[in-house]
Amino acid sequence: MPDPDSLLEAVVFDDDGLVPAIVQDAATDQVLMMAYMTAETLRETLDTGRMVYWSRSRQERWRKGATSGHVQIVEEARVDCDGDTLLFKVQQEGGACHTGYTSCFYRRADDGRLVADGEKAFDPEEVYDE
Amino acid sequence: MPDPDSLLEAVVFDDDGLVPAIVQDAATDQVLMMAYMTAETLRETLDTGRMVYWSRSRQERWRKGATSGHVQIVEEARVDCDGDTLLFKVQQEGGACHTGYTSCFYRRADDGRLVADGEKAFDPEEVYDE
Repeated sequence: MPDPDSLLEAVVFDDDGLVPAIVQDAATDQVLMMAYMTAETLRETLDTGRMVYWSRSRQERWRKGATSGHVQIVEEARVDCDGDTLLFKVQQEGGACHTGYTSCFYRRADDGRLVADGEKAFDPEEVYDE
Repeated sequence: MPDPDSLLEAVVFDDDGLVPAIVQDAATDQVLMMAYMTAETLRETLDTGRMVYWSRSRQERWRKGATSGHVQIVEEARVDCDGDTLLFKVQQEGGACHTGYTSCFYRRADDGRLVADGEKAFDPEEVYDE
């Protein structure tokens, strides 16, 4: 098989038509979140330069930041050796996590216990109407 | 639901009993790879301090570095807000990717074309007998 020319050609979607996308802060290299994309939301992400996912729980397109304003502007897009995982570097407005933390990975294992040591970026009660 | 006490309690495995684990170099914060763990290989990872995955293609436990010597020593383990993704920081011996690159994400999208700009860590022909 020849080497694929483009990112879209290189990506291998799973049986549900999804590919996981890891998101890293372009400035700090902190891993912010992981979410899933369809071919369509990946194409929209590459076309618009803003991260667009597929919400597995809501089964709908998820333009990151549409509600919160916490958009993610694409700085770099990568694909792994077997094409089944993507890696993006982004400029993150506000915080990536709906809990208000900068990163969804705000909990660390410490001698078997979980410790929330992440940095808070915003107050979710002020951002989401629920 | 009360907050989970431990990483193992916090993790939500998918229908196949797997959870994706993102792996970052502890020294550089470069994202090296993503692979999957079962409850058993996650427990072995936490117990031994070395990354152990579940190979979906071979359907078997995969002690990273068993063949290549390129083991990953756990420095930090994190879990995301909804418990369905793990993030590890590791000391990587050699390179993470079977292709010889330091990271599996050695290809970057550049104006629609894929460019291999990753750093080579080893020669796979010298490491794997095939």
